[in-house]
Amino acid sequence: MQNTETVSARIRATVPIPIHLNSGAGVAAKLHTFHGLSDPGEHIAVSIGERNLSPERVPLVRIHSECLTGDVLGSARCDCGPQLQEAVRQIDAEGGCMLYLRQEGRGIGLYNKLDAYVLQDRGFDTYAANEELKLNPDSRDYRVAAEMLTLLGFTSVRLLTNNPEKAAQLAKYGIDVVSVVPTGVFVTEQNRFYLETKARVTRHTLELGELTVGAAG
Amino acid sequence: MQNTETVSARIRATVPIPIHLNSGAGVAAKLHTFHGLSDPGEHIAVSIGERNLSPERVPLVRIHSECLTGDVLGSARCDCGPQLQEAVRQIDAEGGCMLYLRQEGRGIGLYNKLDAYVLQDRGFDTYAANEELKLNPDSRDYRVAAEMLTLLGFTSVRLLTNNPEKAAQLAKYGIDVVSVVPTGVFVTEQNRFYLETKARVTRHTLELGELTVGAAG
Repeated sequence: MQNTETVSARIRATVPIPIHLNSGAGVAAKLHTFHGLSDPGEHIAVSIGERNLSPERVPLVRIHSECLTGDVLGSARCDCGPQLQEAVRQIDAEGGCMLYLRQEGRGIGLYNKLDAYVLQDRGFDTYAANEELKLNPDSRDYRVAAEMLTLLGFTSVRLLTNNPEKAAQLAKYGIDVVSVVPTGVFVTEQNRFYLETKARVTRHTLELGELTVGAAG
Repeated sequence: MQNTETVSARIRATVPIPIHLNSGAGVAAKLHTFHGLSDPGEHIAVSIGERNLSPERVPLVRIHSECLTGDVLGSARCDCGPQLQEAVRQIDAEGGCMLYLRQEGRGIGLYNKLDAYVLQDRGFDTYAANEELKLNPDSRDYRVAAEMLTLLGFTSVRLLTNNPEKAAQLAKYGIDVVSVVPTGVFVTEQNRFYLETKARVTRHTLELGELTVGAAG
């Protein structure tokens, strides 16, 4: 059954939605939902900057994992909010899409993530806290992202990420990652240790030493 | 069993998180998760403006239903994004909390909501589209909100809303709604019909005629 899932999957709905960056700037977007993806989450693809996407241009793609605290509330404990804003802005300029995957807390869910924050406030790093709670440090699988891209016709992509695992998994699932475009690094007083840990443990390509600590954004 | 749920429910974790409005302004918040609520959603309570909450002051409470398109992407098809921003700002000034309930699309879920958007683009209003899809026009139940408020000790509240159903349900579930504070109305070219429908069908107290159509915010 596993191997036929991608073939039987299809786009469910495509809806034009005018969206806004936090700055207030408007961005024309189309949201896509899907039938038959290999996991049951309500993942969406957001096509942006279509006017800038000529046939010879490889689309810019960002895979964003849901983070309620960062995306909705602008939490300074992570860099998800500013990364999402940057991705929409950059994809609008170059043409491509953002996949919004429903795998909160690197796959452990919101309540577990907040349990892990309690441990982090006692000195555990973001991965060690998950281990202390008997949860996987990073349970994200990007197979569903490759399925969504295939259904949208984006089989060759430029990938906006600092996370080498995302590029490796997309390639494994049949997407041609033509190049990797690094994202900005958004350091706050509260997320510096989190970012340093990501760079150390999972080899995220972050150059924190050169950056000035400032407000998220 | 039903009647003992509130008694056996409890706060699971409380985590301080510095959050940010879209304007960049910082707001000190505490997020609360729960054990034993009467529905399984990962609902959170966000305590804000604690410094302004003296014992004689009735806390200001907003019940916000998750809206990925509005909250995360700033969709102009609804008013959820600007309402969330306004609520955080206002509660920070007065002291209280925002409940963030995981009942996307008035309870039908994200994928169904986007199916309904497709029908809305063919002329159905926001409630009729749900009915066409054999979905409840508004399946939200605020029992869980009353449970969360009770656990936080907020049994008397000033409720920030234009939706009379929220105040009525909270009262039914044992919360003393001392007063109702109207929210701002955020009209865009794309959400005017949606807001007019809310005012007409569910008696939301919106005065759209007096407002100038403008950008969301």
